[in-house]
Amino acid sequence: MNTKRIEKVIENMRAHGLRQIIVTSPANVYYLTGVWCEPYERMLALLLKDDGSMTLYANRMFALQGQTDVDMIEYEDTDDSIAVLAPALMPGKVGIDKTWHSHFTIRLMDARPDVAPALGSAPLDEARIIKDEEELELMRMSSRLNVRDCDRIEAALREGVTEKEIQSLYNEVALELGASGPSFTPLICFGPNGAEPHHDSDGTWLKPGDTVIMDVGLLWKHYCSDMTRTVHFGEVSDEQKRVRDIVTAANRAGIAAARPGVKMKDIDRAARKVIEDAGYGRYFTHRTGHGIGLDEHEFPDCSPVSEIVARPGMIFSVEPGIYLPGRFGVRVEDLVAITEDGCEVLTGKE
Amino acid sequence: MNTKRIEKVIENMRAHGLRQIIVTSPANVYYLTGVWCEPYERMLALLLKDDGSMTLYANRMFALQGQTDVDMIEYEDTDDSIAVLAPALMPGKVGIDKTWHSHFTIRLMDARPDVAPALGSAPLDEARIIKDEEELELMRMSSRLNVRDCDRIEAALREGVTEKEIQSLYNEVALELGASGPSFTPLICFGPNGAEPHHDSDGTWLKPGDTVIMDVGLLWKHYCSDMTRTVHFGEVSDEQKRVRDIVTAANRAGIAAARPGVKMKDIDRAARKVIEDAGYGRYFTHRTGHGIGLDEHEFPDCSPVSEIVARPGMIFSVEPGIYLPGRFGVRVEDLVAITEDGCEVLTGKE
Repeated sequence: MNTKRIEKVIENMRAHGLRQIIVTSPANVYYLTGVWCEPYERMLALLLKDDGSMTLYANRMFALQGQTDVDMIEYEDTDDSIAVLAPALMPGKVGIDKTWHSHFTIRLMDARPDVAPALGSAPLDEARIIKDEEELELMRMSSRLNVRDCDRIEAALREGVTEKEIQSLYNEVALELGASGPSFTPLICFGPNGAEPHHDSDGTWLKPGDTVIMDVGLLWKHYCSDMTRTVHFGEVSDEQKRVRDIVTAANRAGIAAARPGVKMKDIDRAARKVIEDAGYGRYFTHRTGHGIGLDEHEFPDCSPVSEIVARPGMIFSVEPGIYLPGRFGVRVEDLVAITEDGCEVLTGKE
Repeated sequence: MNTKRIEKVIENMRAHGLRQIIVTSPANVYYLTGVWCEPYERMLALLLKDDGSMTLYANRMFALQGQTDVDMIEYEDTDDSIAVLAPALMPGKVGIDKTWHSHFTIRLMDARPDVAPALGSAPLDEARIIKDEEELELMRMSSRLNVRDCDRIEAALREGVTEKEIQSLYNEVALELGASGPSFTPLICFGPNGAEPHHDSDGTWLKPGDTVIMDVGLLWKHYCSDMTRTVHFGEVSDEQKRVRDIVTAANRAGIAAARPGVKMKDIDRAARKVIEDAGYGRYFTHRTGHGIGLDEHEFPDCSPVSEIVARPGMIFSVEPGIYLPGRFGVRVEDLVAITEDGCEVLTGKE
């Protein structure tokens, strides 16, 4: 277990008036215990109290015994997992991790009417928003491998290749490079498909004149990378070139604005302004970026409404885009880590 | 939208005393609306009332407009999604889909203290537990492709290949065969790794004398397959052969017991008895099987405590195993569909 992180989380619990929290996401449990476990539909719950006591409730099938020095209570598939956990709670408010499946929370309320579920992820989110040195090094390596993989798939673009083939190549190269896999399904979009921000890669063939979006990331020791490159294949129109230049400039403006003391909404603004000034504002349909670490999407949010102030150790994406329905799309994404006096671009394009 | 399925779900709602439910899992939403959407951390919610009214709440970014004839209310990233949904609820009990992230349920309780969340997946689970003809055909095809893919990876086993390489090959072949991908990360386990029921495939090399577990599945038009083969590589011990024979016999006994009118726990018992009688009972550490369809794991559960009675149209796995820690493991898994007078083995090994 990581004592320094636990202390920080307990300090945050106090600030939020939470005397006990149930930590359930694989990333949060890993962050505090060093054990990675995907429970799927089964219950994994780390009960942390403000006196520092911590107990991990896990299915025996997860085989976690011996992997951690955290106190553990195991249950079996034939047990009611909530009945095993419920008696350990103190009466009153309990913070619940945000992604815990609702049926656990509802069953807990039924089993313990004296316990009141409350939003309980903030103490972890606020600790994880600042990466420590160990995490920063893992995030650098994850992005370094992602850049190498992206170079490889970019070099493989040729007429007639399909989105699915490039997607599959990315996944293979990720494994070759020692990553444990992609951190999300690679989004490879040719031509008009790029105008859908979340297009599922399919059998579409690459042809001259296509703008190609490659939004990819991999997992290095549980830490995620994420990057988007947009390239033109063959001869393209002046508008395609211009739109890519605008989005690239928006990405640079966002990065230039990323330094300690600046609000996330102002970093979003810096990127968004470039696109709005060029007359494409209504085609930039999402936030500028999202935090990343053990999860692909975590704090800080970099959106027009985010009041979070940048601090050293925060890592997030800067990924403005322009999507012209039925025609093409452009997105340019880097990851930045806030430093003492600016930011470090982890995706190393500069 | 699928009127027949909606009517069945409303009938089930009445049986559970639920006048309104919030349907949120991608599979459940797809089952009723024909729209597949992975909302990730954003809110996707289909509000279904017992008067037959149905409204889908979705982020504008999901771009679902035009994909369905269901009434839709879209919100933006800058909106509070729960504030958009909450006013539409009737006071009183509301069934909540089991996997909805707890923060939505907790925020809903804060926004609407007059609304009481209750377990709300049963009406869908009970409809989906019986596959209709369209679903049965899709499940057959999904398993047919899975068998073909498994044949290919089995043929690729050679000395020095790694678990990760076989895993990656499975994924490539799945795409080649027209599947949209694996339905879960393929579990490829060599030698002692097979003794961990959920071993993450790694760089372990295959060597003569290894018992190999291949637990794989793919997605065909959103329907999942799942199958486990255990094979020996090179010369193996008499015990390895014996254990595989025992598990194979347990799998066959489970399949032989699968027919209408039999309780799931008795199908589990039929398989488990073979392993217990052979003296390996304590090394069979999980349930015999799980239902499968749009989700990899769904109803019916085939465990020692499952009182569910088999009915035509139910599809589930029969996957007994023996795990000898530090040595090797064996699991043999098929999917069966209950018919009018027995069962059909979808994985077609017979």
